[in-house]
Amino acid sequence: MKTNQTKNILAAVFALLMLASTAFAADPLPSWNDGATKQGIIAFVGKVTKDDSPDFAPVPERIATFDNDGTLWAEQPMYFQLLFALDRVKALAPQHPEWKTKEPFASLLKGDVKGALAGGEPAIFQIVMTTHAGMTTAEFDKIVTDWITTAKHPKTKRLYTEMVYQPMLELLAYLRANGFKTYIVSGGGIEFMRPWMEKVYGIPPEQVIGSSIKTQFTMQNGRPVLMRLPGIDFIDDKSGKPVGINKFIGRRPIFAFGNSDGDQQMLEWTAGGRGLRFMGLVHHTDAEREWAYDRKSSIGRLDKALDEATAKGWTVVDMKKDWKTIFPK
Amino acid sequence: MKTNQTKNILAAVFALLMLASTAFAADPLPSWNDGATKQGIIAFVGKVTKDDSPDFAPVPERIATFDNDGTLWAEQPMYFQLLFALDRVKALAPQHPEWKTKEPFASLLKGDVKGALAGGEPAIFQIVMTTHAGMTTAEFDKIVTDWITTAKHPKTKRLYTEMVYQPMLELLAYLRANGFKTYIVSGGGIEFMRPWMEKVYGIPPEQVIGSSIKTQFTMQNGRPVLMRLPGIDFIDDKSGKPVGINKFIGRRPIFAFGNSDGDQQMLEWTAGGRGLRFMGLVHHTDAEREWAYDRKSSIGRLDKALDEATAKGWTVVDMKKDWKTIFPK
Repeated sequence: MKTNQTKNILAAVFALLMLASTAFAADPLPSWNDGATKQGIIAFVGKVTKDDSPDFAPVPERIATFDNDGTLWAEQPMYFQLLFALDRVKALAPQHPEWKTKEPFASLLKGDVKGALAGGEPAIFQIVMTTHAGMTTAEFDKIVTDWITTAKHPKTKRLYTEMVYQPMLELLAYLRANGFKTYIVSGGGIEFMRPWMEKVYGIPPEQVIGSSIKTQFTMQNGRPVLMRLPGIDFIDDKSGKPVGINKFIGRRPIFAFGNSDGDQQMLEWTAGGRGLRFMGLVHHTDAEREWAYDRKSSIGRLDKALDEATAKGWTVVDMKKDWKTIFPK
Repeated sequence: MKTNQTKNILAAVFALLMLASTAFAADPLPSWNDGATKQGIIAFVGKVTKDDSPDFAPVPERIATFDNDGTLWAEQPMYFQLLFALDRVKALAPQHPEWKTKEPFASLLKGDVKGALAGGEPAIFQIVMTTHAGMTTAEFDKIVTDWITTAKHPKTKRLYTEMVYQPMLELLAYLRANGFKTYIVSGGGIEFMRPWMEKVYGIPPEQVIGSSIKTQFTMQNGRPVLMRLPGIDFIDDKSGKPVGINKFIGRRPIFAFGNSDGDQQMLEWTAGGRGLRFMGLVHHTDAEREWAYDRKSSIGRLDKALDEATAKGWTVVDMKKDWKTIFPK
């Protein structure tokens, strides 16, 4: 009996130690500097996960949505998917001798990206469709996987997946450890993102929402394939983001993070629900370690959403001040 | 030391008992009669979940997709969502005096459903859009919830949610207990299904894929809403099913169940992947306990898919023979 009692006491002590080690666990956001932003995030998560809190949210309601470009990885000097498309134009050029004299390809192949994009949206549409359609989904998956594991950023010479933000990786993991389901809600192409996001962000394909082109089910040599067609299916940007969230998830997020005016409606939709909500914006303020841009940038413009965030008290991350490190080491 | 040893042995025995109780658990499919169909399902699940099996599938790949109408719940004398639309026409009629002389509404309001549907697809389109669009997503959610918890089936006088198939409820639970993520992939309206499926099938909104009409993000009295618009967004039927699966899940199922030609392409897409796959069809053969129909039915026609199932050895459930009970008691 004595031995049993001792054992029981030891077991209880062990259980308490386990509890304590959870409660006083190592800082879950080590790459965030101490301050109002970090404390605000931790306070929010504490409130919605404590089951005797008036702000408690049951696990199924803990939906967190994140923009990608400029929120989870960098987006300068232009969206990385556009750099992918430009690389694809170069790779495909030998099969298209006519591109030598046909815009926007002719300018692109001479290295004149600005000239190519001078054609505006029709030029971009043509570049995207030429490089993203006309193959099966499996073929496109392989093209993206090959590119993302080898292509280097023109300025930093790092892999694009090494230009994700370390503080945001920690935030994703912290939310998941607290019962949140983390989603991507990006203007980027859904099939451009899915092949690598599970490995890089821990977000599985079924939690990646993005823009898409049409696909068609067809038989190819007796095997079923999905062909990627040169037509827009869905634009997951601006007011398309709440539409995409409702379509894919069917629940309203209680936590959302973006960085540009393209995320404004997602944050409004998140804020419009009942109960405690968290709306966050990454403000690019660090010209030295990353880039500094906001109201006047053509990529990732943050203007109206910044005004609304200020007016409504949404969280605005000051990258320079709030982030100890930017990219993973 | 002696006491410790005894304790260790007891712990080991206890662990073995736990294992044994799992291995020889009560029949996971008690409403299925013993036979090739039931044994085939259990054998499949055993093979893909045993990690030393050559057919092992890691948990994230265990995607199972189910049609709804005729696969998880009944669909006679017509799709239940159509019965919902007819009920809505009656409910809305006082606000539309012009319907008294306007088809297809005039016939409907006289109780002449056949006459109303004689107008074919344009008539159905008009009925669906009139009853499914023109309100916010939150308003439509409430309309569906009110209907599904009160409306009764014209023949059985049961709630529609009491006309789900007990054997399939057990199959859903059995798959989930074995690490599968269960999805709905239905031609039915996604927002008609989401309000009640979590409670009835244990399938959360984000795992319900269906047909949809367009929605638009807008501000209503200063609050963001999604308005349901009278236009088709996506038809999740026939070759739309693999398209929907790829769009929403981004992975190919290893297990799929349907009951009609509308599910044929979903089963082909499932069969087309590498590794062991399970393709199943519910064949409605029980005129006494449910309904008997297949090749000539206008609702849930099973003709070409039945031929393909026979040719390729897919599982065909003979409802009369394979199911001990049909509806929950």
